[in-house]
Amino acid sequence: MPLHRYKLTVAYDGTDFHGWQEQNPPGLAPLRTVQATLRSAIQQAVGRPIELIGASRTDSGVHALGQVAAFTADCSIPIERLALAINARLDDDLEVRSAEIAPDDFDPIGHAKRKQYRYRIWNSSQRPLMHRRHVYHCWSDLDPRRMNDAAMRLVGEHDFEGFANAGHGRLTTVRTVYDCRIEPDSAGCEVHVVIQGNGFLYNMVRIIAGTLIEVGRGQFAPSHINEILTHADRAAAGPTLPPQGLCLEWIKY
Amino acid sequence: MPLHRYKLTVAYDGTDFHGWQEQNPPGLAPLRTVQATLRSAIQQAVGRPIELIGASRTDSGVHALGQVAAFTADCSIPIERLALAINARLDDDLEVRSAEIAPDDFDPIGHAKRKQYRYRIWNSSQRPLMHRRHVYHCWSDLDPRRMNDAAMRLVGEHDFEGFANAGHGRLTTVRTVYDCRIEPDSAGCEVHVVIQGNGFLYNMVRIIAGTLIEVGRGQFAPSHINEILTHADRAAAGPTLPPQGLCLEWIKY
Repeated sequence: MPLHRYKLTVAYDGTDFHGWQEQNPPGLAPLRTVQATLRSAIQQAVGRPIELIGASRTDSGVHALGQVAAFTADCSIPIERLALAINARLDDDLEVRSAEIAPDDFDPIGHAKRKQYRYRIWNSSQRPLMHRRHVYHCWSDLDPRRMNDAAMRLVGEHDFEGFANAGHGRLTTVRTVYDCRIEPDSAGCEVHVVIQGNGFLYNMVRIIAGTLIEVGRGQFAPSHINEILTHADRAAAGPTLPPQGLCLEWIKY
Repeated sequence: MPLHRYKLTVAYDGTDFHGWQEQNPPGLAPLRTVQATLRSAIQQAVGRPIELIGASRTDSGVHALGQVAAFTADCSIPIERLALAINARLDDDLEVRSAEIAPDDFDPIGHAKRKQYRYRIWNSSQRPLMHRRHVYHCWSDLDPRRMNDAAMRLVGEHDFEGFANAGHGRLTTVRTVYDCRIEPDSAGCEVHVVIQGNGFLYNMVRIIAGTLIEVGRGQFAPSHINEILTHADRAAAGPTLPPQGLCLEWIKY
């Protein structure tokens, strides 16, 4: 059987996962993570151990519609049936949306050119009952136009250290944001922060969303964004919003 | 303090409740039900025991946007702050949407004139990941126009015994359906069964939705609805769909 590199596009509801990355705490049962759950299903489908690399190490509670993962295997399953074969071994909160054969050297982390995240803010005095696992509830009235003014200031190549929490462990904190805007949702009581970039620092989208909320409720001027960027001062930015509002929408290569 | 009858409009995500009705299995802890949870929060708010009556005994896993409940109490909380006071004592999957003073004899069951339910069918080969607690996943392609043709045949005063499961315990199985139609959802991969009536038998909406799915995927002709009505034959109708797709939207008095 030929050895192939496979590229998977993967979607999940992050609620019941301890994030993407496998975690095997000593003396305890392994945690339920996306990487471990998906790797195990792939191994059952292809009949041998594999190594699975994911493009983004999403945190516990964060969702994905377009996570990308890759593995190499000699596999007898036709490519058009591979997603189905893996999905048959997965619970209903995780799904392979597509599978394709990639170049032998395909690296989902290193070759990623552009990613889009969405942070959903539920802006109403009513509770988000049915949506509470997928939004952050903000009671204060938000001004989306002010937020959008602030969001646009993030576009470009900047040092985003002021929008990262400690522990990112990256050599450089310079990233390029290609687009950042506020989208109202169709139902009317949500405000979405949509952001595209070439890469994101630890908690960066959740801190940006937390900062834009402060702008939206009048605590920060939109120009405060420029100061955070200039001084790279995490303390000047807003809070890190909780994970459940965040979704990795797609990754382009 | 004056004794008042209070009418509450209540919304909940039914996922983590064992239905509306209080259940105290002997020798075991009481189950988490909407009625018990809400009654306890009201009692804390008003400072004394109350009896709480709900308009619809929704099953385990069924959701509500407009359940109606009533209680009588002498209560010092101003009516405009009562919902807030109760909500402060509720978890985030249950909410009093409004509270008002009702006539002394207000009976949420007996005085209900019209109710609307919605059953959400997720009709796609992709999984409903983020929506899986609020839809029923149907893989077969559905024809909404055929379903709508069948749905319209339910409108009117009929004996709905063929669309009820045993155990309803009602004296008569005659009900009036004021409206029954198929609505596509905005996102495009859902088909909703929307039904209004003066009352519903046990599992009636879930059996109607299950029967309309059989019509939609070509197993039944739309005219099969008339035969089920005529012969009052439960075995001729479709399956009882699972609870998570069902939502009680509103009740009119």
